[in-house]
Amino acid sequence: MTELVFSKDELVFVPVGGATGVGMNCFAYGLNGKWLVVDCGIGFPDDNLPGVDCLLPDPQFLAEHKSDIVGLVITHAHEDHIGAIPYLWRDLQCPIYCTAFAKELIESKLAETGLLGRADLHMVNQGDEITLDPFSVEFVKMTHSIPEANALAIRTKAGMVVHTGDWRFEEKNVAEDTTDYETLKALGKEGVLAVVCDSTNTSEEKVHANEADVQKTLTKLIGQYPNQKIAVGCFASNVVRMQSIYQAAKANNRVVCLLGRSLWRIDAAARATGYFKDIPEFLSEQEALELPQTQVLYICTGSQGERHSALNNLTTLMPTPNQVSFGAGDVIIFSSSVIPGNEKVIDLLQKKLRSKGIEIITEKTELVHISGHYAGDDLKKMYDLLKPHIVLPVHGDTYELNCHQQMAKEMGIPFAFGLNDGQMISLKKTPEIIGDVPSGILAVDGNQIVPLNADVLKKRRKMMDEGTAVLTLVVDHNAQVIGTPQLSTFGLMSDDEAVKGDLGQAIASALAEIEPERAGEDNLIKDKMRHVVRAFLKERFGKKPLLEIHLIRI
Amino acid sequence: MTELVFSKDELVFVPVGGATGVGMNCFAYGLNGKWLVVDCGIGFPDDNLPGVDCLLPDPQFLAEHKSDIVGLVITHAHEDHIGAIPYLWRDLQCPIYCTAFAKELIESKLAETGLLGRADLHMVNQGDEITLDPFSVEFVKMTHSIPEANALAIRTKAGMVVHTGDWRFEEKNVAEDTTDYETLKALGKEGVLAVVCDSTNTSEEKVHANEADVQKTLTKLIGQYPNQKIAVGCFASNVVRMQSIYQAAKANNRVVCLLGRSLWRIDAAARATGYFKDIPEFLSEQEALELPQTQVLYICTGSQGERHSALNNLTTLMPTPNQVSFGAGDVIIFSSSVIPGNEKVIDLLQKKLRSKGIEIITEKTELVHISGHYAGDDLKKMYDLLKPHIVLPVHGDTYELNCHQQMAKEMGIPFAFGLNDGQMISLKKTPEIIGDVPSGILAVDGNQIVPLNADVLKKRRKMMDEGTAVLTLVVDHNAQVIGTPQLSTFGLMSDDEAVKGDLGQAIASALAEIEPERAGEDNLIKDKMRHVVRAFLKERFGKKPLLEIHLIRI
Repeated sequence: MTELVFSKDELVFVPVGGATGVGMNCFAYGLNGKWLVVDCGIGFPDDNLPGVDCLLPDPQFLAEHKSDIVGLVITHAHEDHIGAIPYLWRDLQCPIYCTAFAKELIESKLAETGLLGRADLHMVNQGDEITLDPFSVEFVKMTHSIPEANALAIRTKAGMVVHTGDWRFEEKNVAEDTTDYETLKALGKEGVLAVVCDSTNTSEEKVHANEADVQKTLTKLIGQYPNQKIAVGCFASNVVRMQSIYQAAKANNRVVCLLGRSLWRIDAAARATGYFKDIPEFLSEQEALELPQTQVLYICTGSQGERHSALNNLTTLMPTPNQVSFGAGDVIIFSSSVIPGNEKVIDLLQKKLRSKGIEIITEKTELVHISGHYAGDDLKKMYDLLKPHIVLPVHGDTYELNCHQQMAKEMGIPFAFGLNDGQMISLKKTPEIIGDVPSGILAVDGNQIVPLNADVLKKRRKMMDEGTAVLTLVVDHNAQVIGTPQLSTFGLMSDDEAVKGDLGQAIASALAEIEPERAGEDNLIKDKMRHVVRAFLKERFGKKPLLEIHLIRI
Repeated sequence: MTELVFSKDELVFVPVGGATGVGMNCFAYGLNGKWLVVDCGIGFPDDNLPGVDCLLPDPQFLAEHKSDIVGLVITHAHEDHIGAIPYLWRDLQCPIYCTAFAKELIESKLAETGLLGRADLHMVNQGDEITLDPFSVEFVKMTHSIPEANALAIRTKAGMVVHTGDWRFEEKNVAEDTTDYETLKALGKEGVLAVVCDSTNTSEEKVHANEADVQKTLTKLIGQYPNQKIAVGCFASNVVRMQSIYQAAKANNRVVCLLGRSLWRIDAAARATGYFKDIPEFLSEQEALELPQTQVLYICTGSQGERHSALNNLTTLMPTPNQVSFGAGDVIIFSSSVIPGNEKVIDLLQKKLRSKGIEIITEKTELVHISGHYAGDDLKKMYDLLKPHIVLPVHGDTYELNCHQQMAKEMGIPFAFGLNDGQMISLKKTPEIIGDVPSGILAVDGNQIVPLNADVLKKRRKMMDEGTAVLTLVVDHNAQVIGTPQLSTFGLMSDDEAVKGDLGQAIASALAEIEPERAGEDNLIKDKMRHVVRAFLKERFGKKPLLEIHLIRI
């Protein structure tokens, strides 16, 4: 049990995950022995973690206080804010509060893992305030790249914290999801003790355009290619963008077809919660193929260069008659950004598409995407509205987090702290970092959940560079070989085969060296074999694989 | 033997490598049955190619024409222009022509591979013209981020081609390596048939600052931290930058120490060829540690986030007394750019350094780096000087290559072609793509050189996600198990062990199912074992490893 010393009526905050990067958002607020949890998201493994499906914040601290958690409140439905719920729900076992759209997506996640009936989900409307004693939480409408994004105004006897979630400002939104400036202003007047705030694009100086401008550009572009097939790649969860693309297609007399499972999943969640009311059902691939292709517009997954995604499949070498296929002269618009780390795979995909003669249009040359995160003066405007006493930047890379902290100081905000995961701060007039609670990162690997520093992950990095090998050797009690030794290698330039030639001779010589009285020592034989096989593979392939010896005594 | 049909006095050009990306620069010019080769560089594998050390252009086409190659001419000494020489020299076996600095580095490469005495290296001064009949090649001074970068004016009876190599323009260079504008202008007057030109930053609108400005900024920054340890990370081959850092250190009464082997290698090459004449020998780590640390400035390798590099080692947990160690309050300047693909590892390194309290300064906020490649109007200026009839953009990502082609067209240049590797073009009044010669990419993997599409590379990607496993089973002729079966897994969350419990039982049942008359069929037993082990590992770990069965009959 982790207990840091602070008085019962102190309001404390601890990032369980998500404080110093992008992903794994999970934050806890404590007061009077009770805990309020905000968001529970996954992180995305980089290439240093081969085989890992996703990352989770280590829930140890939450699990220790399970019986005192009053609720899990969700800011919005992006994977890095809700994706860990199915994995960590057993450690929380508390009611979940979220808006309708998030509820729809969380339910489908829970259903996939057999937890649906067990978790207690409560739908909250934007603008509502719920009481989770000793906290009350007001859901304040924000603009982001997914429907129903919220800032949370968390009121307590010890003061109010505004937990912004991910956000941007936008004056003329094409959707109804515009920021509730009035409430933000009122919160500022009421008095904000602390703000916990998104930092994704803090250093970007240029204020983003509006979604309405993106829609205009898409309409113009689609109109420029009346005789071509056109596809638009976008992030599946960007419902507003899907609307923009639909409107742009409609203005050009094209009907929209969705390609890619995650788009259909979002479509279902959106329609179930009242979105797309004026948009007819999207076409399936089958339906779209029955129409003249100049009357269709395809929205595709795969704008991040994912293999096996819809965009990638558009240029399958041998398309079946039931498959859309793009070729020379056709047009693909990437209505998306490049997520850091994906630069190379995206370039590879675009190179492949261009090599087929497909024209590629991206945000580099046309206003076909805007970010869901604020830039330019928006942060200053936010703090002008909220007038916080303390700022806690979260959710951004190291550089952006530092910029955010710096900017808060320059704006004259009395306190700005860059916390690490697990670091607990007492939020009061003179805020104070109290100490650390257990925290860390877990990896979801196949059907196992393991610590990120697990030895197996280090081994996996080694084996991808150096390969693996197993030698099987059957010997009698005199260490005489029976049958033929077998060597299997993986990741080396060779066909596996029964051992012969040089290796066979080296094995025989090594065994012959063993003194008769030690012929029964398995470890001695194994050590010798390891030495022989290592030298052989190093010489032959220039590699040092992970190696096991199967020694069998008959 | 690859022969495309073109007349003997036609001048043809074919990118052997490097046409559609960054790396593997290798280009061939053909005339009268003779071939001139320009550059011979390596490429850098991305994370899709685990275990691969570097990439090479497939030399098949060159090897087929080996006896007709009049020479290999080197534009400059970056790895992506010279790094493949030791690997491919046997396929070329022709004289190599390069400047002194490149010669020094190529010689040390050849020495490492035992080829030094066999390759025929010729030193050429910048400004010189050499005759390699039917070609003559003039070395024209250019500015780039390494000493002695050259454009090559390749004169033939069929016209002149300017092969720019990598370049930027710079009016006030701190080094003597400024571009020879006069010669470029003269070439334009003489008449340029075609330009083969670098595209790295074509789309960047902002013209870069000068190296002199970088030096000024470094001087200012170092002066701001008189009481701190300071390290500067930079690309090892950037000799001019090393000079700038030296001058900035000297102005602040600090002596320079080099940390990292590649910096020392470049230092040796630079001093051997007349650079650093006014710079005293750099300090070793030992020597630096004997001085007050506020009188030292460290230049470090590792600005791209490489593990085990000097920058990374600065925060070793347990430094030995012979090791420099940085901590809270110390300063590290990244005098380098972020090479695409390295975003995440660099962020990880900087996060680690910041978490130790080290202050990080990068090009994001201070003018501590400029690129070696042109930007802004420089390309237009270049073409205004050269007035080419044909432009062939090479060396850049897909987007930059397209921009380059587009810009050439907008400048009114009659022909601009985006070639692929292996595509041969006839350079004449009305240029014409003739066809394709064999081309491709080879991977250097341990001590093997293999095609990039080798099955083993696909397997390696699978094994890093799914792991590998070997089951050893000894049976008699009735398929009765002898001894205990053994299972080794790699990359799975388990300790390897003799098989027991569920798997042992499953193996026994599967063997029991075999009809007695088929008990001698090895393949039947292996198939059954594969099935059993797969099901077991899928159930237990959620993974489908690459699997081999070692079946031994006694």
